[in-house]
Amino acid sequence: MPPHPRPRADAGTAAQLAEQRAWLDDFWARSDVEIGGQPEIQQAVRWNLFQLAQATARAEGSGVPAKGLTGSGYSGHYFWDTEIYVLPFLTYTSPRYARNALRFRYQMLDAARRRARELSQKGALFPWRTINGEEASAYYAAGTAQYHIDADISYALVQYVRATDDRDFLRREAVDILVETARMWEDLGFWRANGDDNFHIHGVTGPDEYTTVVNDNLFTNVMARFNLRAAAYVVERLRDEHPEDHAALVERLQLGVSEATEWRRAADHMSIPFAEGIGIHPQDSHFLERELWDLAHTPADKRPLLLHYHPLVIYRYQVLKQADVVLALFLQGHHFTAEEKLADFEYYDPLTTGDSTLSGVVQSIVAAEVGYHELALEYFVSSLYVDLANLHANASDGVHVASAGGTWSALASGFGGMRDYNGELTFDPRLPQSWESLTYRVTWHGTRLRVTVLPDALEIEAETGEGTHVGVRGEQVKVVPGEVTRVPLDGQGPVRPGRPSLRALSGNRRDDGTLITATVPHS
Amino acid sequence: MPPHPRPRADAGTAAQLAEQRAWLDDFWARSDVEIGGQPEIQQAVRWNLFQLAQATARAEGSGVPAKGLTGSGYSGHYFWDTEIYVLPFLTYTSPRYARNALRFRYQMLDAARRRARELSQKGALFPWRTINGEEASAYYAAGTAQYHIDADISYALVQYVRATDDRDFLRREAVDILVETARMWEDLGFWRANGDDNFHIHGVTGPDEYTTVVNDNLFTNVMARFNLRAAAYVVERLRDEHPEDHAALVERLQLGVSEATEWRRAADHMSIPFAEGIGIHPQDSHFLERELWDLAHTPADKRPLLLHYHPLVIYRYQVLKQADVVLALFLQGHHFTAEEKLADFEYYDPLTTGDSTLSGVVQSIVAAEVGYHELALEYFVSSLYVDLANLHANASDGVHVASAGGTWSALASGFGGMRDYNGELTFDPRLPQSWESLTYRVTWHGTRLRVTVLPDALEIEAETGEGTHVGVRGEQVKVVPGEVTRVPLDGQGPVRPGRPSLRALSGNRRDDGTLITATVPHS
Repeated sequence: MPPHPRPRADAGTAAQLAEQRAWLDDFWARSDVEIGGQPEIQQAVRWNLFQLAQATARAEGSGVPAKGLTGSGYSGHYFWDTEIYVLPFLTYTSPRYARNALRFRYQMLDAARRRARELSQKGALFPWRTINGEEASAYYAAGTAQYHIDADISYALVQYVRATDDRDFLRREAVDILVETARMWEDLGFWRANGDDNFHIHGVTGPDEYTTVVNDNLFTNVMARFNLRAAAYVVERLRDEHPEDHAALVERLQLGVSEATEWRRAADHMSIPFAEGIGIHPQDSHFLERELWDLAHTPADKRPLLLHYHPLVIYRYQVLKQADVVLALFLQGHHFTAEEKLADFEYYDPLTTGDSTLSGVVQSIVAAEVGYHELALEYFVSSLYVDLANLHANASDGVHVASAGGTWSALASGFGGMRDYNGELTFDPRLPQSWESLTYRVTWHGTRLRVTVLPDALEIEAETGEGTHVGVRGEQVKVVPGEVTRVPLDGQGPVRPGRPSLRALSGNRRDDGTLITATVPHS
Repeated sequence: MPPHPRPRADAGTAAQLAEQRAWLDDFWARSDVEIGGQPEIQQAVRWNLFQLAQATARAEGSGVPAKGLTGSGYSGHYFWDTEIYVLPFLTYTSPRYARNALRFRYQMLDAARRRARELSQKGALFPWRTINGEEASAYYAAGTAQYHIDADISYALVQYVRATDDRDFLRREAVDILVETARMWEDLGFWRANGDDNFHIHGVTGPDEYTTVVNDNLFTNVMARFNLRAAAYVVERLRDEHPEDHAALVERLQLGVSEATEWRRAADHMSIPFAEGIGIHPQDSHFLERELWDLAHTPADKRPLLLHYHPLVIYRYQVLKQADVVLALFLQGHHFTAEEKLADFEYYDPLTTGDSTLSGVVQSIVAAEVGYHELALEYFVSSLYVDLANLHANASDGVHVASAGGTWSALASGFGGMRDYNGELTFDPRLPQSWESLTYRVTWHGTRLRVTVLPDALEIEAETGEGTHVGVRGEQVKVVPGEVTRVPLDGQGPVRPGRPSLRALSGNRRDDGTLITATVPHS
């Protein structure tokens, strides 16, 4: 991705057009996704990618607002969407834009420090919604209380550094974000003895805004654990490998000698809610005590729920606006077993409304992994057409840029099976039965890989760069320039028909097995 | 309390003055409280009673706003304060004013029905703050979520009917409030199997606004239980004793044949949080999982907490704005043992800030009952002088009418030891050591009793009416007109020195006994 010399403003239309053409050729060369035998889906995919190109190419000065520059929805504000839904696409196809967006966050760090002070916390707390770094949420329960924004930013930052090996950015700027966010987590949580000492984080809202201000939200705790460990790791590596940079860091942030050790200790003792009896992770420590909401019997004219029910009603139920535990299963999948992923997905899927457009892409990715292939395709298609078919009836407010980014993730990580846990690039694909092939590009440590999923094989080629190693279903595979590496595939993973149905826990059933509550509130 | 014929507007100053004098003479005759040997406290008590006279004499058209007509605080709004803090005074000294205030609520019933629909509930939900019956809360967490308003109104209504025997009002108007609020409770709560089926009420805020939107708030559940049983009792009595009125009720409210049975069943299975290990009632089902807030080490310039910490900070801690469990111990004391009351009071007292002026009077009453006499006097005095000494630095916003009402309750029910559980009037006094005597008036079934507490005896006289029976420390006592009934007292109940100190639970202590968290947040 070499910088394009821009033509002079008076160079004339032809030069401007040529420059724009060259820019777009470059964009498509590094970003295109091709779907064999599905021309309609192909067209919609490219429409989404084009929206991403428009929304992200100039992130250095303004971040990536939720609607890009396409509409007035969300007042131009910037959310976690960028880090979790858009940055993976940028990191793996246009890493310079990813760095621009992350640097924009870095410039907001002082504002985030002030925000932490306002909330009586140490370190830095990034705003839930913002333009210039100041918190712009009007409603803290589904705004400020989403402390997970700190971990989301740290996650995107580490993902970028691992994919690019851009250690300069890490040493000189990004490390400050990791340290200040780790400090926030250590201070926000608290120790409590329940037999063992455990580290708890109370009074937070996870991604699912249909329950708010809860204790030990699984997503938040899992991501905070990642954040604390990443900060400790980076600080310790810096101390061992770059003592001058470490000394500068200690001076700059008044870093205490035992801070990294304390972050690790909090991470290692992080409370992770798990319901032994039924083998699922509750969304928060008391989620399973709620009533069940029977979505299957909720009339269509009562959707989305947030426009038809008071928050006090919605908050009392087991019902999700968007994937929460299921998002953790994707972002931190190496901390969950295959059985846990299946059980969690099957439990939460029938409770998830998808009233947020951020949900479908995540449900698609995890559905593909655990074997609900048709459902994965269904969620993918509904995300792909959110704006093109105006499925949420609000396309006039602007493009859902995060959903567009998420469709790329659903292609690369869902059907494409790409993961990057622990800094390794791996593939375990799930090609939909109706697709002939899926081809996408991934730039890893400067090498641009062209990955093609076929019904019976995975093919990888280095389009640019020096080649690299990747993992395919547990096997190490070497990719060298100018050569297609073909790995035979024995099918597309587990296959489960249909979709999961509502599962009532013992607390929701009488001794005779009848359901106690699976009611829709009156309205 | 015969109605006063009002002089004509042109009757002249002398007639107006005479009318006013007669009105006040009547007020003091039925309402005065005399404290022997304490002229300063006596003067302050009368100031508070005079504020109540001014705020409540014309409740028929406007209810009793939180500031009466003395200031612009709370914008003239009307809260639960009236029913729980002011109506006991009116019911026992000026029952006609009590009926006026309750009838004002009755006139709001249609608005409360509409409000219930907005919240997807059956029955009626009274507004948390209002002038004309419409909800005027801007912040639902410490507003609409205080569903207990329904039970508070039912409580005041039943208290009024029991004290006055005004069955006409009950049969023709008040019963509608009982039925509609019982319907709201039955619909708001839900059944859940935990071994037994239990009835739970989730997502509510109790009186303590420093924790919000919790599950099974003890106060709410105890009061909802009262409300459900009262409605069932009244409906069944009506059916048995006044079949025509019952038929009219069935027609008017479309009352189902099994509704009363269902209310009773919900009440009988109401979930009442109790922590076996430490023998206290948690404020809500997860209250004890919170961090402890160390009030003793919170600087004075950080009080009241709500002005110095974000709600997200306060909500994470075990810290109370005002009495919550302790208020239930007073209003529904017959459902708690003496040991439970002592343990609960000792647990919550060190966690209670008193940042609400509604708190001190309740803490005074229960402190007196469980034996913390000096503390009871301290809370009483600080409530007595809230406005006179401007102790909350906001007397310029107007008089704290509820606190004024509460000082009467602290005198009559705290030091005076009066209770009215199950429709019986009983006395178990706690005269402060520094007081020579305490005399107050209580009108019961048309008989005005003059009750005098002395260090070694209780004296009761019927000032008007036909006499009645009361209970004094478990003994039935007959009061006849024209005769002072003297009951010797063996002391003033249990005596405990000092005040309770912060008690750390096992979860807040390490194995070596050190406290894990009793910290004050940074600010």
